Amino acid sequence: MAGEKNWTLLTDLYQLTMAQSYFRERQFGDATFSLFIRSYPADRGYFVAAGLSAVLDYLEDFAFEPAAIDYLARQGQFSEDFLNYLSRLRFCGDVWALAEGQIFFKDEPLLEITAPVIQAQIAETFIINQLHLQTLIASKAARCVDAAAGRPVVDFALRRAHGTDAGMKVARASYLAGFSGTSNVLAGKEYGIPIVGTMAHSFVSTFEREIDAFRAYAAAFPRGAILLIDTYDTLEGARRAVAIAREMAARGEQLIGVRIDSGDLAELARAVRKIFDEAGLPQLKVFASGGLDEFDLARFSAERVPFDSYGVGTRMGTSADAPWSDMSYKLVEYQNRPVLKLSTGKVSLPGRKQVFRRRDPAGGFAGDTIGLRNETLGGEKLLREVMRAGRRTAPSPPLGESRALFAAEFAALPAAVKALRNPQIYPVELSPALHALRQEVSRKYQEC
Amino acid sequence: MAGEKNWTLLTDLYQLTMAQSYFRERQFGDATFSLFIRSYPADRGYFVAAGLSAVLDYLEDFAFEPAAIDYLARQGQFSEDFLNYLSRLRFCGDVWALAEGQIFFKDEPLLEITAPVIQAQIAETFIINQLHLQTLIASKAARCVDAAAGRPVVDFALRRAHGTDAGMKVARASYLAGFSGTSNVLAGKEYGIPIVGTMAHSFVSTFEREIDAFRAYAAAFPRGAILLIDTYDTLEGARRAVAIAREMAARGEQLIGVRIDSGDLAELARAVRKIFDEAGLPQLKVFASGGLDEFDLARFSAERVPFDSYGVGTRMGTSADAPWSDMSYKLVEYQNRPVLKLSTGKVSLPGRKQVFRRRDPAGGFAGDTIGLRNETLGGEKLLREVMRAGRRTAPSPPLGESRALFAAEFAALPAAVKALRNPQIYPVELSPALHALRQEVSRKYQEC
Repeated sequence: MAGEKNWTLLTDLYQLTMAQSYFRERQFGDATFSLFIRSYPADRGYFVAAGLSAVLDYLEDFAFEPAAIDYLARQGQFSEDFLNYLSRLRFCGDVWALAEGQIFFKDEPLLEITAPVIQAQIAETFIINQLHLQTLIASKAARCVDAAAGRPVVDFALRRAHGTDAGMKVARASYLAGFSGTSNVLAGKEYGIPIVGTMAHSFVSTFEREIDAFRAYAAAFPRGAILLIDTYDTLEGARRAVAIAREMAARGEQLIGVRIDSGDLAELARAVRKIFDEAGLPQLKVFASGGLDEFDLARFSAERVPFDSYGVGTRMGTSADAPWSDMSYKLVEYQNRPVLKLSTGKVSLPGRKQVFRRRDPAGGFAGDTIGLRNETLGGEKLLREVMRAGRRTAPSPPLGESRALFAAEFAALPAAVKALRNPQIYPVELSPALHALRQEVSRKYQEC
Repeated sequence: MAGEKNWTLLTDLYQLTMAQSYFRERQFGDATFSLFIRSYPADRGYFVAAGLSAVLDYLEDFAFEPAAIDYLARQGQFSEDFLNYLSRLRFCGDVWALAEGQIFFKDEPLLEITAPVIQAQIAETFIINQLHLQTLIASKAARCVDAAAGRPVVDFALRRAHGTDAGMKVARASYLAGFSGTSNVLAGKEYGIPIVGTMAHSFVSTFEREIDAFRAYAAAFPRGAILLIDTYDTLEGARRAVAIAREMAARGEQLIGVRIDSGDLAELARAVRKIFDEAGLPQLKVFASGGLDEFDLARFSAERVPFDSYGVGTRMGTSADAPWSDMSYKLVEYQNRPVLKLSTGKVSLPGRKQVFRRRDPAGGFAGDTIGLRNETLGGEKLLREVMRAGRRTAPSPPLGESRALFAAEFAALPAAVKALRNPQIYPVELSPALHALRQEVSRKYQEC
């Protein structure tokens, strides 16, 4: 994004203290780190990769500004030599990654980075910060889109997303995962996402009568008005919307529909739909919002509640039922020596890797294998080289292209894996070569 | 923060569509909006106000840049007159608010804004976005500090906080609520928070032997080293730390201590403490991290587990058990006419208000009254005028001052209200005048 801040100092202090120690020991060897999610949060059976573009921007802009170096110098724990070194440091590594919009599973690397260890280590914090958030939200948003069963879903999360960056990235990640638009105007401008909006209860309250508020709004938006009808009495509001629709039609204008934001939404939708149909206005749309998540949408779909589209906010934008995942960035190779972590329950997969995906004859996902990067195995190779020697190998695809990739991949994901509750675990195996390497490295550690 | 982006376009589209309708109707009257939290999330009995400074910065910088106006013009739904008006719009309203660090309760306004309705409406989204996040995190962090019972707690949340802004604001809000420092280097620089850091498992793994990693780190930090001892075998790691501590002491240097990040932390802490004490090194500190939250810290405190301090990350930084609150911004007065919302379960409090807090003879909080702003009632008045006609009435206090205010106020909050599970509900009542006004306004609506 143009004019974006330089985020190189947005890192954990230990990345810099380790860097000083590496520097002092002249440890400038290449390290490979692998980023993956270790387990599924409750009710999750898949993840949607998102956020790569922000990571590549960061790596291309990687540089400690003079004010950052001054700040570090004032801490009194970094040597002048090291700070001089830091001030000239740029990112010169390679990155392999899943395309944004690609679907992946636990233990599968969504990104592997090979770079001099100091660079790879300092970049860890920002890389996780961005990929964790966008992947979390894209994965939650995909559930909402699936549950809506074809009805458009739009993002209303900005106000309760966690800060400005989350507000922007929630709009982006949810659009990537199939949302139709966002209420976030800046996200519309920066990412080219369609923006949508109606009116608030406060707008209705500033007029003496609800009908006056509706009439004023219709006058300002003769082609794009949606009226919020639940400020006082929703059914009365619906009847007033009918009156407005007729007034507009008489002027050659058109009311789009209404929004309902509170009460028993399913019951109100049916009653409002009936009022519109009986008034001979079947084209009027009924839009729902108000604390919705994928479970509500699935219920509305199952019960054929006559909503035409949904606004989904806080619960999607904070991934409220699973507000974090255990995404980890682990050293898997150092100076061509495979490395793994052995701590209880946290065994990692050594070496540079690749994910191979097999398809059934109908094109559906049939199973993945995590193998070594130089292996030849059947299936599509999902990790691509996206950065070489600190430069992108190609421009990041436009967001619309990533959105189309997601849609195509999601259609190929088995329905049981998409289940909102207790999804089936998708089969992911290790290649024999990776399995053997892990055994060998474990044995070597145990001999130490 | 210097060089901060202009966030005026970070708003919901409906704020702008409503604005166009107000503009068309020549509705430029003053509106008062009240910001409050409608209910307690699970296990919460109080909130800590935070984020006001970012809101006041935003209001002082409020202006649509030419690129923003161009973008809006391209949407094809805004009139040229209105866009000209927007391009000249600045915020000229008044703001009353709780000081950052102040403790408050459900239904109590933490901010009231009075401004021409278009301005107050456009600002809603950003105001909630910032105050919701920082208040949520300060409230969660306060629980951690309380549970740690005097041991220092530091923020490790940056990597899994929701984006860059959340990473920064989590560091800020947790420090405000009593944390001792953060791993976030940029937050250290921007907010003057002490920064802390040790080493990662990957650092240990890049060396052939754990002791070599420890020795290299100690050489780089002769006065500030903390060693991570759980990469292979925690007790072996502790014995190696003893060796390093002795080598350092022989050189006139000093090892600070060790960090344990996995395993049965309580059991390991006791065993490691024993190793250090038996080695005649009682000054070595033992630091815990790894998926901790206030419930873990409370258990360690209750069981007198010999940890000296804690690093708390993801669960605090996402407020994992309550990742959002129903903070709302409601119209309470328009053109000197009190307004309220009547929807089921969502009744708001009309008029400009004040919060009055009573103390018991020992200085403890004894009960609050929400009254009208011009009432004379007993108790301290908590809302202060912080902005008049678009300008701060005084510079925002330094963060350290807000942190001291929080500490003093928190000491006065009854222990039962602070309970981590099923806290006692603190008594908050409405003044008779506010009660009467609410009755009167409700009656008037019912007559409509």
